[in-house]
Amino acid sequence: MVEHQLILNPKAERRLKRGHLWIYSNEVDTRRSPLKGLEAGSQCEILDSRGKSLGTAFVNPSQLICGRLVSRQGALDGELLHRRLQTALSIRQRYFEHPSYRLVYGDSDWLPGLVVDRFGDYLVVQVSNWGMERLLPQVVDALTELVAPKGILLRNDHQGRAVEEMPRVNEVVFGEVPELAPFEENGVPLLAPVHAGQKTGWFYDHRDNRERLNRWVEGRKVLDLFSYAGGWGVQALACGAESATCVDASEQALDWCRANAEHNQVADRLRTERGKAVDVLKAMVAEGEKFDVVVLDPPAFIKRRKDHKAGLSAYRHINELAMRLLAADGLLVSASCSMHLAADELLDCVRGAAHRLDRPATLLTSGGQGADHPVHPAIPETRYLKAHFVHLGK
Amino acid sequence: MVEHQLILNPKAERRLKRGHLWIYSNEVDTRRSPLKGLEAGSQCEILDSRGKSLGTAFVNPSQLICGRLVSRQGALDGELLHRRLQTALSIRQRYFEHPSYRLVYGDSDWLPGLVVDRFGDYLVVQVSNWGMERLLPQVVDALTELVAPKGILLRNDHQGRAVEEMPRVNEVVFGEVPELAPFEENGVPLLAPVHAGQKTGWFYDHRDNRERLNRWVEGRKVLDLFSYAGGWGVQALACGAESATCVDASEQALDWCRANAEHNQVADRLRTERGKAVDVLKAMVAEGEKFDVVVLDPPAFIKRRKDHKAGLSAYRHINELAMRLLAADGLLVSASCSMHLAADELLDCVRGAAHRLDRPATLLTSGGQGADHPVHPAIPETRYLKAHFVHLGK
Repeated sequence: MVEHQLILNPKAERRLKRGHLWIYSNEVDTRRSPLKGLEAGSQCEILDSRGKSLGTAFVNPSQLICGRLVSRQGALDGELLHRRLQTALSIRQRYFEHPSYRLVYGDSDWLPGLVVDRFGDYLVVQVSNWGMERLLPQVVDALTELVAPKGILLRNDHQGRAVEEMPRVNEVVFGEVPELAPFEENGVPLLAPVHAGQKTGWFYDHRDNRERLNRWVEGRKVLDLFSYAGGWGVQALACGAESATCVDASEQALDWCRANAEHNQVADRLRTERGKAVDVLKAMVAEGEKFDVVVLDPPAFIKRRKDHKAGLSAYRHINELAMRLLAADGLLVSASCSMHLAADELLDCVRGAAHRLDRPATLLTSGGQGADHPVHPAIPETRYLKAHFVHLGK
Repeated sequence: MVEHQLILNPKAERRLKRGHLWIYSNEVDTRRSPLKGLEAGSQCEILDSRGKSLGTAFVNPSQLICGRLVSRQGALDGELLHRRLQTALSIRQRYFEHPSYRLVYGDSDWLPGLVVDRFGDYLVVQVSNWGMERLLPQVVDALTELVAPKGILLRNDHQGRAVEEMPRVNEVVFGEVPELAPFEENGVPLLAPVHAGQKTGWFYDHRDNRERLNRWVEGRKVLDLFSYAGGWGVQALACGAESATCVDASEQALDWCRANAEHNQVADRLRTERGKAVDVLKAMVAEGEKFDVVVLDPPAFIKRRKDHKAGLSAYRHINELAMRLLAADGLLVSASCSMHLAADELLDCVRGAAHRLDRPATLLTSGGQGADHPVHPAIPETRYLKAHFVHLGK
């Protein structure tokens, strides 16, 4: 299964020895071990410049990150894959009461390129590199055996696959999977649009942050920006919010909000506004609307490092707009899923906005991704989510 | 009340204009406005180098941080003090169900040098600068009026006062205060040794982190290092842990652990070990003891910036020792209250220890101080607490 060897340049092994799993193409000694000609998705043994083996990696010669370590020893075969999935499952079972979680989170679970979200009896699988793509039949077999699901959906229609020139596919590969998969989050029953929704259908990563907010919404008027299927807004309603206004550019997303609100018998307190968040915010500011709680959970404004400056300015702008809608003694939840934006940079956007609006601001708490998106201590890139809970006076 | 003016050097106003409240002695234009001769605790108007007023500050000419802004306008008098305390109280009442919290957290509540912890009907007050000391009678009056407590204890016997050459005092200044003040944390009834304990008698700052742990202890064997009065260990027992071993160098602290365990009818599952944590750890390692959960919540190993290197090495050492006691699939809670240790540095101590012991480690979640210790977005120094929850395989 291990087809070739790749030799690294001197000192290039340092990061790997600290526990990181990525190999950049400029770290390979291509004179001694050409990348050219290797097939995307092949597994290669990785050697340091002195010839010492560092393990086995998925290789794609056309990528900047041309190698992803899958083991400190031999290949990732069916047996090792099974063991890795079993470990991932046992960790989730240990820390979660309900089978609603991200079951596999790529590198952090020693399974580069694989994401599996579990919605009770249903699994949604995403693959993002050729190495894992080759193992897909074994992945499906092992998941079927370990979880005994009613259905497995392959959501391989995401943008990330374009980068590796992989075909886009959205299909059920085992059993049956309903349009809306029932699951729960923080004790609230919900429905995930697994076939047609974004990514796997749900963003489990904010679970803990939503739980934090759920305690602070009773009797409050909540605005949920970039609401998607209502993860924040509908949960807030289920936890006693007076009202929730979900704003999204997609009418389909708002349909899912309504479906989730009906599922919780709180649809009478849900308001939906279709439109781009910035436009809706400006209109609301003009009308003098005020909310007790504003949740600002936008898509990544900084997708690549070079977008940092423009993205930071976008975060600044929208945080200030959101803050204008906050009543006195209001609560702003300011989130970002941009891996390239540090938590402190986001906080500084909020500080700056409060300063310009002359409003006293204190940070009550900050949160990150939940335990089903574990951070690999040696791979900072596995940590991307942040949410600041900021109280704003007058 | 504002007695003098202090003029800052050119550009020294920048930090203050961003929202920070501290003035360093080398930022004062002492040629134009000598610090010498000013009385410790006086309130002075602060001017930038062009003469524009920046507000009013507590001044202590003998300190490195010689000024602490108390207002962007006039003096902090009895009326403004009352308003500030009222704001602090209303924020806590908004975000906490039970009156067990830090009611005032210094700079973050615009009250430099003042800490007030509330244990239901009892308040414990700490003052750490001369400016606030002068206002103490008004602080006590305002607290009495706003909270209507049964008693107020002044715990002005802490180290911090030595720095400002303030007298050490430990006395009840209003009503009566019992030896052990009843309160609750995360739904668990507890007793705080307010008269004789560390600081105000309790460390509320870890509330959220303990709550996180409480969900993961059922049936587990827990080790609580530097236990003090059992904040982690006894709560874990109350939440279903099979056993908790509290380790502390002070027999009195262990007495308080036992009192808290009895208060919760879980004393039969509590074990106490008196001794220095490192010694006890080594002995336990030698005996081959194993725990499912180890909580490592030491006092600050890095008190001043210059202790950073030695402190980091101490964190590394003790994290590795603690990890040796963890059973397979164990959970390490690694905390630090050192303001000078970054959260990522602490995580790297854990990563390194796991690496040396060849144990797979994933970071499940990280937490900071609770909402009653709000962070001032412009004052990084108001954030000091971190806790990493790390799952360790085999």
